[in-house]
Amino acid sequence: MEKAAQENGHSMIIPTISQFNRVNDADMANVIAHYLDSISHIRDHFLGYPTNLDFNYDALVQLLRFHLNNVGDPSMGSSFSLNSNPFELCVLDWFAKLWQLEKNEYWGYVTSGGTEGNFQGILVGRELYPDGIIYASRDSHYSVLKAARLLRVKCVVVGTLISGEIDYDELKESLLANKDKPAIISLNIGTTVKGAIDDIDLVLQSLEDCGFTQDRFYVHCDAALFGMMVPFDVGAPDISFKKPIGSVTISGHKFLGCPMPCGILITRLKYIDFLSSEVEYIASKDTTITGSRGGHAPIFIWYALNKKGFNGLQEEVQECVKKAVYLRDCLKDHGIGAFLNKFSNIVVFERPQDDEFARKWSLANKGNISHVVVMKHVSLEMLDSFVNEFVKERCAWYEGNSNRQMQPPCVAEDIGAENCACAFHKILIS
Amino acid sequence: MEKAAQENGHSMIIPTISQFNRVNDADMANVIAHYLDSISHIRDHFLGYPTNLDFNYDALVQLLRFHLNNVGDPSMGSSFSLNSNPFELCVLDWFAKLWQLEKNEYWGYVTSGGTEGNFQGILVGRELYPDGIIYASRDSHYSVLKAARLLRVKCVVVGTLISGEIDYDELKESLLANKDKPAIISLNIGTTVKGAIDDIDLVLQSLEDCGFTQDRFYVHCDAALFGMMVPFDVGAPDISFKKPIGSVTISGHKFLGCPMPCGILITRLKYIDFLSSEVEYIASKDTTITGSRGGHAPIFIWYALNKKGFNGLQEEVQECVKKAVYLRDCLKDHGIGAFLNKFSNIVVFERPQDDEFARKWSLANKGNISHVVVMKHVSLEMLDSFVNEFVKERCAWYEGNSNRQMQPPCVAEDIGAENCACAFHKILIS
Repeated sequence: MEKAAQENGHSMIIPTISQFNRVNDADMANVIAHYLDSISHIRDHFLGYPTNLDFNYDALVQLLRFHLNNVGDPSMGSSFSLNSNPFELCVLDWFAKLWQLEKNEYWGYVTSGGTEGNFQGILVGRELYPDGIIYASRDSHYSVLKAARLLRVKCVVVGTLISGEIDYDELKESLLANKDKPAIISLNIGTTVKGAIDDIDLVLQSLEDCGFTQDRFYVHCDAALFGMMVPFDVGAPDISFKKPIGSVTISGHKFLGCPMPCGILITRLKYIDFLSSEVEYIASKDTTITGSRGGHAPIFIWYALNKKGFNGLQEEVQECVKKAVYLRDCLKDHGIGAFLNKFSNIVVFERPQDDEFARKWSLANKGNISHVVVMKHVSLEMLDSFVNEFVKERCAWYEGNSNRQMQPPCVAEDIGAENCACAFHKILIS
Repeated sequence: MEKAAQENGHSMIIPTISQFNRVNDADMANVIAHYLDSISHIRDHFLGYPTNLDFNYDALVQLLRFHLNNVGDPSMGSSFSLNSNPFELCVLDWFAKLWQLEKNEYWGYVTSGGTEGNFQGILVGRELYPDGIIYASRDSHYSVLKAARLLRVKCVVVGTLISGEIDYDELKESLLANKDKPAIISLNIGTTVKGAIDDIDLVLQSLEDCGFTQDRFYVHCDAALFGMMVPFDVGAPDISFKKPIGSVTISGHKFLGCPMPCGILITRLKYIDFLSSEVEYIASKDTTITGSRGGHAPIFIWYALNKKGFNGLQEEVQECVKKAVYLRDCLKDHGIGAFLNKFSNIVVFERPQDDEFARKWSLANKGNISHVVVMKHVSLEMLDSFVNEFVKERCAWYEGNSNRQMQPPCVAEDIGAENCACAFHKILIS
């Protein structure tokens, strides 16, 4: 009747339901209470993912009593009356304005998350250019390569610079080598691991230099986290549809913070005719990938945008970026190699030796590096506590150990020799 | 600052946020209150969609304070610690058992809805048979044809019988005409409009008859609504992995009832290696289409299954089917052509003349027909009220009108001459 679920950091007892029996309310309440308890402590150490845990939607709990489904095309509405389309349209207007696309020229929807946004953006590109080739840097989110595979589009993976930006020269070479096919380019406005912003202007210039006219390319911008940051950071590069880009997507649960994964995809209205297919059953057009789409997320996003306003968001962005600088400096002061891109809240550093330590702080690792994403819920106290523990544990991992394998990993190839504190580069620097 | 949102049945004022200003809490509370009021009355007339509005998850509202994300492969868990994987695994175990697949032989996940379930099921088929052809009846959910288009797989659309079932003879002809290519067949365990159950055994027999061995076909079952009904209805056809089927999907928000669209996809574990791709960043495999997946829905499903148990579900199924019979009979008694498939809760009838009437009752129309899906929240009183109003309005639409265009539509081609009450067939019958 019961089984321990100790996977995934949850040490709780949940009733199995494989016997198909009814379980009484008290037993279920008990399980939920234990679960809430087990997850309530995670927040204090949640550093490795771009998920803002600092939100409060208590004012919206009554919505949970309703099934809400924004099936079909948000710009048309549907005959499914339990929807939140008016809120969704408000949210879409907001983002279209943020990214400088006129109200009568955009199309978009609230997605189930960043993956669907990338999928739909790249799909629009494919429908425009059925024989197009996708170009994406190797630091792109894994969903971009998945979209290419699912959509059966050839994908050229382009290398990256140390910063994590796409290698512009290599991109140019690849474009020239495939000049006979239209280009569908997926750019990162903030890569997942290093928070690198691909230079849209430079890529557009490269396309022009390589002889790709505007009717021969499509640029999708994966701005999952940074799409809500760069518009509020003075001096940061623009995300703007005044440039010949095709689509932008962000995640609603990242910078903004939301209980469920969700996102926003904005593209140009003129492209959407390619995707349209009237469905009488819902009295709408089936223009989105997921079809039935949750109606709660658009209201949560609407609420957060209203509550914060432009000024509130700007303050939050500045605060996160400032704390990220603080963390990078702290790590470096303690002799730990660390790196932070401009306008970024993602601090990259050597991978901790101990998986238990990484798990405690919910760190996301890749090869020799790890990172902290400084979101709104991350306080200076958390960062101090993290650095102190890291420094202390690190001593234990490496101290007095002359075995090369038990020394801090070299991260020169990941974040540059000047940011690497491995035995070899530390010596060179000093 | 404000705009009226009268689309989609909502007559409320919502503050636009295009000026990027903060909105105060009182104004937002006002908007939410108006919205809640506008949607709270919809339930009383919500007849046309397979969405059970009779649920109560008040015991789970605290979960809204947490972001929950089941990113990656549920069978592996992930390094994203704010997940509900233990609940998801429980739910998957339950459905695997229901559909008779052993625990160590299944793979699945909680999806964002029926569309993703169909997409993933058909994707598994495509990855097994990259040169396969999809066969789907014309009464399939629109997501099946969309999946074919997105996945770039040729799709043969097969006609249907009056009942809505796939035309088995035509399917055989199509299979024989394309014998050189593997077959990916998407069957309906309950079509969207007529609630017709394709005969799995007959289709498997047809495959054998046409010379397709088990390593040359894949059968996906779209059981969005009926997957939660037929296992509880004595005498109804089995959904069972003891037969050589490849995948089954249902929607969590349909028979079970859930605030957000969600679903379950179950397939055979042995197929999943084709889809796997390790992603170090999340310490999991990227086996699902959406990647980041909401962690709340699995807990809601877990809660509903526990609360109802097998017996509770059985009672609910019997009740819905009984009320559907009642509605069909009422309509026929009033001289309105109506039709109900066996084991179905979907009553099909002539399309009401007046769109306003259809909108009031949230009816879903297709051509000359409309339907009511008798879900748990649909009471006999609602049905009586609906029939009475239909009969009364219908008199006004057609009475004394000798113009052929203003007579009840002929639905003989849709639901059979014997169920049609149009001027011509009524005469033939009487």
